[in-house]
Amino acid sequence: MFKVTVIVKRKPAILDPQGKAAQQGAKLLGFENVRNTRIGKFIEFDILTDDKTQAEKEVEAYCEKLLTNPLIEDFEYKLTQAQ
Amino acid sequence: MFKVTVIVKRKPAILDPQGKAAQQGAKLLGFENVRNTRIGKFIEFDILTDDKTQAEKEVEAYCEKLLTNPLIEDFEYKLTQAQ
Repeated sequence: MFKVTVIVKRKPAILDPQGKAAQQGAKLLGFENVRNTRIGKFIEFDILTDDKTQAEKEVEAYCEKLLTNPLIEDFEYKLTQAQ
Repeated sequence: MFKVTVIVKRKPAILDPQGKAAQQGAKLLGFENVRNTRIGKFIEFDILTDDKTQAEKEVEAYCEKLLTNPLIEDFEYKLTQAQ
């Protein structure tokens, strides 16, 4: 089995309304030093195989078909072997 | 200046409907090895100070008051000094 973590970020050229809202909130609350807030996703799951090549293939397909929108988002993932 | 990354996860006992929906989608799409999908947030921003203690204080307040709901979410953050 592998434990998988995936970080999903909007591509740099794509607007991030959620991050912008948080950034405006930061200013309203007096956090004067906060800049450039951007909000993405942090996803965790398990893959029930010990074949790393198969695991990577399934992780990439899961990310591309369901977890992200490849038109506007980039992702990176990490596998950690577990018991 | 510090570059800050924050990972926000729902506490283990708290239901995660977004993760559950992705998990059900995985099954429907035939990703038979995927289990236990949970979806949190990955947040990035800058802090315009070179005083690390001040930066940490501001990051923690920003996380606790705006970026997370401390009742149902945990967060961890990392500062990296930048130019």
